[in-house]
Amino acid sequence: MTIPYPHFIASEKAAMEAGLLSPSSSSHPSLILTQDDLKKIAAYKAVEYVESGMVLGLGTGSTAKHAVARIGELIQQGKLKDIVGIPTSKMTHEQALSVGIPLSDLDSYPVVDLAIDGADEVDPYLNLVKGRGGSLLREKMVEGACKKFVVIVDESKLVNHIGGSGLALPVEVIQFCWKFTASKLQKMFEESGCEAKLRTFGEKKEPFVTDNKNYIIDLYFKKSIGDLKVASDAILNLAGVVEHGMFLDMATTVIIAGELGLTVKNK
Amino acid sequence: MTIPYPHFIASEKAAMEAGLLSPSSSSHPSLILTQDDLKKIAAYKAVEYVESGMVLGLGTGSTAKHAVARIGELIQQGKLKDIVGIPTSKMTHEQALSVGIPLSDLDSYPVVDLAIDGADEVDPYLNLVKGRGGSLLREKMVEGACKKFVVIVDESKLVNHIGGSGLALPVEVIQFCWKFTASKLQKMFEESGCEAKLRTFGEKKEPFVTDNKNYIIDLYFKKSIGDLKVASDAILNLAGVVEHGMFLDMATTVIIAGELGLTVKNK
Repeated sequence: MTIPYPHFIASEKAAMEAGLLSPSSSSHPSLILTQDDLKKIAAYKAVEYVESGMVLGLGTGSTAKHAVARIGELIQQGKLKDIVGIPTSKMTHEQALSVGIPLSDLDSYPVVDLAIDGADEVDPYLNLVKGRGGSLLREKMVEGACKKFVVIVDESKLVNHIGGSGLALPVEVIQFCWKFTASKLQKMFEESGCEAKLRTFGEKKEPFVTDNKNYIIDLYFKKSIGDLKVASDAILNLAGVVEHGMFLDMATTVIIAGELGLTVKNK
Repeated sequence: MTIPYPHFIASEKAAMEAGLLSPSSSSHPSLILTQDDLKKIAAYKAVEYVESGMVLGLGTGSTAKHAVARIGELIQQGKLKDIVGIPTSKMTHEQALSVGIPLSDLDSYPVVDLAIDGADEVDPYLNLVKGRGGSLLREKMVEGACKKFVVIVDESKLVNHIGGSGLALPVEVIQFCWKFTASKLQKMFEESGCEAKLRTFGEKKEPFVTDNKNYIIDLYFKKSIGDLKVASDAILNLAGVVEHGMFLDMATTVIIAGELGLTVKNK
């Protein structure tokens, strides 16, 4: 159920705190929300789940960065205390330090109370695709260690089935013989019209290298890949594959910010 | 069936070629064979499977190095031609170059005719443990791309069940939060009395780093780990794991050199 912003106190509060609604405009909102505004609203809503004393998984990407900023703000304001953050990437590590979140890692805190992160796709069963930002492996480690995993997205991320956005399902692979691995992956999903492409960056199209010094093969599908667990096992069984971006049965809550309001889905 | 050396022409030939039997002594062998002699005999026997024109997977370790040396020798003698070697480690790459084997990789030769490699354990179904030399990942990529995979071992490597030697089952993991991953692995096999240890080297006990810049967690078991396919999937499903050293249903032939003779087992 989608709760329209003007009639939903919590999200109104979230939108106000995010600087998107002023108290005077909140009863007659006429603002036009950008995709980034929606991400921010979802992020602020998610941070309401955070309590003092928690060990927090800190996600990576354009949506998660709003949550990290907000957590830092609440710590500075003294509204959150004794927080330990576990960043899911070097980038988030930097950002979290800059906003004053005390950090540690899974070796010291193997159980995480709550993680907040964005996603690239969310299917009706709350299965996710993540990793377009390139941090899928550390995200999966941290978010797999969480009691609660709150996912924050704008409504453009909703899909009928994984791969349905036409955008990439990322697979992290070792550099050694990556072409061989890419061609194995493409062949594995031949019936789904799969195309496997090395992720590159910059003008020189150099290979994108993950925090773990691996490459990313992006898989694009024309059709559904069928049973996700079967697909996941098949990908992981391929020597050369380190991890993939499907997060199956991991999200406990998904907060979706749409133009008409906030939707909260629980597992 | 074990074929005693004195009565088995091929292995006698192999032993002679390996410099372990002289023509005069072959009918009354009284030599005492070391473990390394046995490895050499098995390796020379395996090289009899090699034909000119083949793309060859070249294994890593104390047994495989005898096969690589022998292949180089036959190329130098003009007895093998048009061989392309695919090395499974940087170490084998060096050795193969030094003995004159032309090299390439899986990206250029995605189908390998034959691979020859050692193993740390061989169970009655020809499932293997590999990777005590640290090259399990590249070995698995190359040997998974082979039409035929000939494994060469001395008889000390035979076990009733995987893990049965009491030595390590290696798991390659990313460096990030390796302690967390190690503790997850140990917990996964708690019922088998599993102990998980980071592989180190040298006096300073620094972490051993693989060719792919990862760490190795060695798993030691007190009891059988049960269904190997189930165990394999569970290990691979753990985020942070890159690959493990169980090679299930991959070997097509195992050549076992024992004190009493050579045994060849086919799948």
